[in-house]
Amino acid sequence: MSFREDGQAALDWAANYLETVGELPVLAQVEPGEIRARLPASAPEYGEPFADVLRDVDEVLLPGITHWQSPRFFAYFATTASEPGILAELLAATLNSVSFLWRTSPASTELEAVTLDWVAQLLGLPDGWHGHIEDTASTSTLAALAAGREATGGRVVVCSEHAHSAVDKAARLLGLELRKTAADADFRLRPDRLDLTDAAAVVATVGTTSTTSVDPVSQIADACEEAGVWLHVDAAYAGSAWVCPEFRWSQVGVERADSLVVNAHKWLFTPMDCSLLWSRRPEALRAAFSLVPEFLRTSDEAESLSDYGPALGRRFRSLKLWAVLRCYGREGLQARIREAVRLAELFEGWVGDEPGWELCAPRHFSLVCFRLDASDEENEALLERANRTGELFISHTKLEDQYVLRLAIGNERTTEADVRRAWEVLRREARGG
Amino acid sequence: MSFREDGQAALDWAANYLETVGELPVLAQVEPGEIRARLPASAPEYGEPFADVLRDVDEVLLPGITHWQSPRFFAYFATTASEPGILAELLAATLNSVSFLWRTSPASTELEAVTLDWVAQLLGLPDGWHGHIEDTASTSTLAALAAGREATGGRVVVCSEHAHSAVDKAARLLGLELRKTAADADFRLRPDRLDLTDAAAVVATVGTTSTTSVDPVSQIADACEEAGVWLHVDAAYAGSAWVCPEFRWSQVGVERADSLVVNAHKWLFTPMDCSLLWSRRPEALRAAFSLVPEFLRTSDEAESLSDYGPALGRRFRSLKLWAVLRCYGREGLQARIREAVRLAELFEGWVGDEPGWELCAPRHFSLVCFRLDASDEENEALLERANRTGELFISHTKLEDQYVLRLAIGNERTTEADVRRAWEVLRREARGG
Repeated sequence: MSFREDGQAALDWAANYLETVGELPVLAQVEPGEIRARLPASAPEYGEPFADVLRDVDEVLLPGITHWQSPRFFAYFATTASEPGILAELLAATLNSVSFLWRTSPASTELEAVTLDWVAQLLGLPDGWHGHIEDTASTSTLAALAAGREATGGRVVVCSEHAHSAVDKAARLLGLELRKTAADADFRLRPDRLDLTDAAAVVATVGTTSTTSVDPVSQIADACEEAGVWLHVDAAYAGSAWVCPEFRWSQVGVERADSLVVNAHKWLFTPMDCSLLWSRRPEALRAAFSLVPEFLRTSDEAESLSDYGPALGRRFRSLKLWAVLRCYGREGLQARIREAVRLAELFEGWVGDEPGWELCAPRHFSLVCFRLDASDEENEALLERANRTGELFISHTKLEDQYVLRLAIGNERTTEADVRRAWEVLRREARGG
Repeated sequence: MSFREDGQAALDWAANYLETVGELPVLAQVEPGEIRARLPASAPEYGEPFADVLRDVDEVLLPGITHWQSPRFFAYFATTASEPGILAELLAATLNSVSFLWRTSPASTELEAVTLDWVAQLLGLPDGWHGHIEDTASTSTLAALAAGREATGGRVVVCSEHAHSAVDKAARLLGLELRKTAADADFRLRPDRLDLTDAAAVVATVGTTSTTSVDPVSQIADACEEAGVWLHVDAAYAGSAWVCPEFRWSQVGVERADSLVVNAHKWLFTPMDCSLLWSRRPEALRAAFSLVPEFLRTSDEAESLSDYGPALGRRFRSLKLWAVLRCYGREGLQARIREAVRLAELFEGWVGDEPGWELCAPRHFSLVCFRLDASDEENEALLERANRTGELFISHTKLEDQYVLRLAIGNERTTEADVRRAWEVLRREARGG
């Protein structure tokens, strides 16, 4: 194998993919088991050329890929693996740094600290918070709640009924009880309903998964402060919007959090995975996670970021974040965030103006919650029908026991024409196709 | 920015790096804070060309990179990010699949199942085990112990005093007590000392981190079976050796495990991160982790691999593993494993024959534990001096309260000349440089 030759082929594949991804069916149009059935039952006895692998990516795997990079991917939270981020991942894989100790990759450890400081400044967070990268918000939340348990000795995690299921998962793993608090009509945690008895931590969400509602963080911080409870803010999606001052209304109170998660792989144009976790009480994270067995003992006087989370081995994830921040700059990030919000606003307007359709939640950022004025079954059937066209991919939630459609904008390739086409597909399919 | 042009530059950088990595100082020769000091305090206001990022990788970061890809990286467990694995990471970053549900990336979910089946066959594991990929063995062990807790209701994790610190970390996170069992003179857990009172799980290690000792898995399995305790086998490093039948002596009893972790990013030529977790009781993993909130509910009748571990979002990690298995084949994997073991055996012979040096533990695979017949301080100083030359990188452990040097072979670029040079550097530095 020649790395240069095979690399050229892989790079051409990637470039062609990015140029044409908008023409592919967004949601993979296959049945369960279909891809598996096309693959051999065993690994080959002898090595094959990389060109064969690349051919099979196209012929075997591609039909089974849901295209997260498509400009008409509107499900969950739409994301972007930007071009500088992709190329930085090539470099990171080439270096294959495993930065569990400072000495095993000083550049990875220090660049991680620096990029987290950069992002903290871009988002307007307080000075001096300690930041590091975890794989996903599930892990960041797990780490934060473990620190909260360590710092307080409490046995209960409190969150809104609209908090992400990652909170349930983390609480279960940590053996903590989960107490869900009622939300108001706009899907925000009701601070008057907070019960902090035996609480280790409260998770406040800025930008909930269902509707991007924003919990009243200031009031929650008051309660946490009074009760001596850890406050973790989950801004996995919406936190990136703070790069634009006009969205910082949703940041009020966050400066009082003990920990905060923002996923750069959600709305900061960084490839999966890159979940940013800050804390103003890093000593509690260290108390929860630091362990120095003999084989990891060194004379280096420098921190090791594996002391702040569950995993020991760590990829060089800051490289892709750094590449994105460098190549986009503050201005480039702002422009992309603002465009996504503008497109969501447009779509919201079209739905609001159309008889027979309704908006189901306030739109704060780039997500629109809406439905056909019809039964849940009809809305669900509409979603499945629309997704089956391959022209778009949207997802759903339930609000007040009603099936609600979600259209999330976040891929940087999405244009007004893409959003318009999505709306046309939805209206067409609502009329029965 | 042009992705093709910048990609070409990144690819050239990667190819040049791989061609010349053997000439760079293996351990980064910088002081703590040195890399940080070279970086601007803030992100740029406006986007910069990718070429500037690439230039700074060389000028700013490279001196702070410890070269895991160097053929004279002999610390911890030496690893390889193989060329097909690197290029597959480029493809995975380009696709940016987030496979938390089957429908969000059917190909990722199904290829993950298929490649884990392939590896199970290559390693001679029992048919029918359920496999999936976690980031690191820390997470795989955490998931396994959570499943053990779920399945048994026990409150204690039992392992040998030589088990990896990941077990301590996982037990602490799960709120389980950790009970360490004494080891014999060859660093193997003593089954006659096993106390399984209130135990949720036992972790048996095949290839411990300090010495690659192999716990008596069969006897541990007997005890677990009798007590109804979950048996997790940590073969993170050594499991890959089972691709060669001559190393399967170390697999006896593993067929009775409830779960097993093997890190493909350790000795299966796959870039970080790629930790393979199998279980013959996947329903216990599901019971520990499955949560289906409304926004993730689909009509698909297919499993979602996020139901088997802590994280919801998952990268398309199987792509790189598949590329390695395809391009190397069983025969290619065997040849590389055997060569690493042959080189370790050679080095072991040299140390054993040299007056003033001693071997400190049986060599089973590709790790040699040895020391200068001198004080701990002299051995530690030797290690630091040797590493400071930049000609090699080795690490250490403590065995029976003695400071012991570890030389681990695992990078596919390592030749006999590299091992010979390492031995020359060590002897030279032992003589005082």
